[in-house]
Amino acid sequence: MAVYTEVSDEELEAFVNSYEIGALLSYKGIAEGVENSNYLIHTESGNYILTLYEKRVDSNDLPFFLGLKEHLAEKGLNCPVPIKNREGKNLGHLAGRPAAIISFLEGMWVRRPNVTHCEQLGAAMARMHQAGADFDLVRPNALSVSGWRPLFAMCAGRADSVSAGLGAEIEAELDHLEAQWPQNLPTGIIHADLFPDNVFFLRNELSGLIDFYFACNDLLAYDIAICINAWCFEADDMFNVTKIRALLKGYQSVRKLEASEMAALPLLARGAALRFLLTRLYDWLNVPQGALVMPKDPGEYIKKLRFHRSIRSVADYGLNG
Amino acid sequence: MAVYTEVSDEELEAFVNSYEIGALLSYKGIAEGVENSNYLIHTESGNYILTLYEKRVDSNDLPFFLGLKEHLAEKGLNCPVPIKNREGKNLGHLAGRPAAIISFLEGMWVRRPNVTHCEQLGAAMARMHQAGADFDLVRPNALSVSGWRPLFAMCAGRADSVSAGLGAEIEAELDHLEAQWPQNLPTGIIHADLFPDNVFFLRNELSGLIDFYFACNDLLAYDIAICINAWCFEADDMFNVTKIRALLKGYQSVRKLEASEMAALPLLARGAALRFLLTRLYDWLNVPQGALVMPKDPGEYIKKLRFHRSIRSVADYGLNG
Repeated sequence: MAVYTEVSDEELEAFVNSYEIGALLSYKGIAEGVENSNYLIHTESGNYILTLYEKRVDSNDLPFFLGLKEHLAEKGLNCPVPIKNREGKNLGHLAGRPAAIISFLEGMWVRRPNVTHCEQLGAAMARMHQAGADFDLVRPNALSVSGWRPLFAMCAGRADSVSAGLGAEIEAELDHLEAQWPQNLPTGIIHADLFPDNVFFLRNELSGLIDFYFACNDLLAYDIAICINAWCFEADDMFNVTKIRALLKGYQSVRKLEASEMAALPLLARGAALRFLLTRLYDWLNVPQGALVMPKDPGEYIKKLRFHRSIRSVADYGLNG
Repeated sequence: MAVYTEVSDEELEAFVNSYEIGALLSYKGIAEGVENSNYLIHTESGNYILTLYEKRVDSNDLPFFLGLKEHLAEKGLNCPVPIKNREGKNLGHLAGRPAAIISFLEGMWVRRPNVTHCEQLGAAMARMHQAGADFDLVRPNALSVSGWRPLFAMCAGRADSVSAGLGAEIEAELDHLEAQWPQNLPTGIIHADLFPDNVFFLRNELSGLIDFYFACNDLLAYDIAICINAWCFEADDMFNVTKIRALLKGYQSVRKLEASEMAALPLLARGAALRFLLTRLYDWLNVPQGALVMPKDPGEYIKKLRFHRSIRSVADYGLNG
């Protein structure tokens, strides 16, 4: 939940008038997204999202993020698309920040995903991976294996305050993952944050993917690994074999996984668990003064990490390697 | 800024389906209103506000609030109107709370009101006072003069921690205002919270009034007094004579003030300043753990109170009594 930047109505009206979307009729700050300020604006031509990019997003990355959404939409993927202003640009400035007006994507995220949702997610992710194949901008994944140790260094000293022995456990994980991380799997554009709140459904049909602000170039199967953690565990932390099967079935209905990708899934899921454990741990230990956002409990990802550590091969997930 | 209650999509869809407003297409928690949880929902028939009434609103008052909006809208006033569900009711239950779907009012509140805005506000307030004259439900004003001393009692001990001597100053104000408060002025339905964020404009024309959750029966001129404080001071706390003139001109273009009302304005404005000082003081001293809302600084209303205390008659405002 976040509206960080207050915008005056005069400024906002002038900004909206730099687009061909009709006059501004209303705007409301919306309680979604933690990286940026988001407003739902209503103009004579409909609903739009206005995003002001706060300092947590590197403005050098904005052409990648905005261009990617345009590219994916051109390829037929349902995602929010930046609107071009009268100068043909998809990025402007408002209240001292980079700002964009993005098309409004109908749909709602599911609080309790079921097997069908997982299967549709898999297929949509595979379509996204295919559609991204010929996108020509590149953004390395700062939160992949090489980024974890520096991130851990910023909170290592206080890790044990969250859970006894956690520092040493993460240290050992880093050693293992850095040594074993696969090098030769297919790469491409991944979303890297396909949690349920970034996947919209309408009447149980997937209606689109949103929030591409972690998208980057990385192993395609790592995107699947992130989703395994985000979609295939129940509220009681139990792993749901039926959901991972559905996720992979949906994915492979569009893009067949190579044997090496399938074999790497347990390690990638372990790495993905560590990645979200580390960012949650960092946020947990560094809540800014006056924060409007409660950080997410890192404990959930400690459990997921330990679960994947117990897995020797995909067969242990109940899958056929 | 507040979304207190998380609603599951299944619950929300079922709730929306109890109305004849088409299927739910999307919903976003909005960062407005501090008393209730508000969602902007988009259905096949357009935009609506979904309000879940949190415990700060007495559910016994809801028929008054919702009925008043219906009554005012029938009289031609622009305000959000509760939608009736398939059973003909304007109030339902969602996520364990009373909940209503309200029509979406276009417009934006002005961050920096000018003289024209003040004049339009005056006229709209007077129309509201007239339209409310034959509304048949009654709600006493718990935050009028008789309610201030009990409210002060809850924070008297810590008032001086905000400003030295504030406790004694408020005590003396209470004595004075309780003794002098006018008894025989015209009464009726007042909004009681017509701050700029509750008054919408579109292209500099007033498009409607919102947020009737403090509306009650009280002195009509007290509503004007609240607006004098909320609209006629500049950011540097200077009183703007042109704005109060415009406010009263607009009001009297619809409803002529009696001489007794005009004469009472300085005292009423002083009381209104104390009322908002007291609630801000209380909120300032009682920020709940994990609050998402920063309380408003009571200092602004200390200054306004002192200003009005220096006023002997409306002539001192630069007005003709």
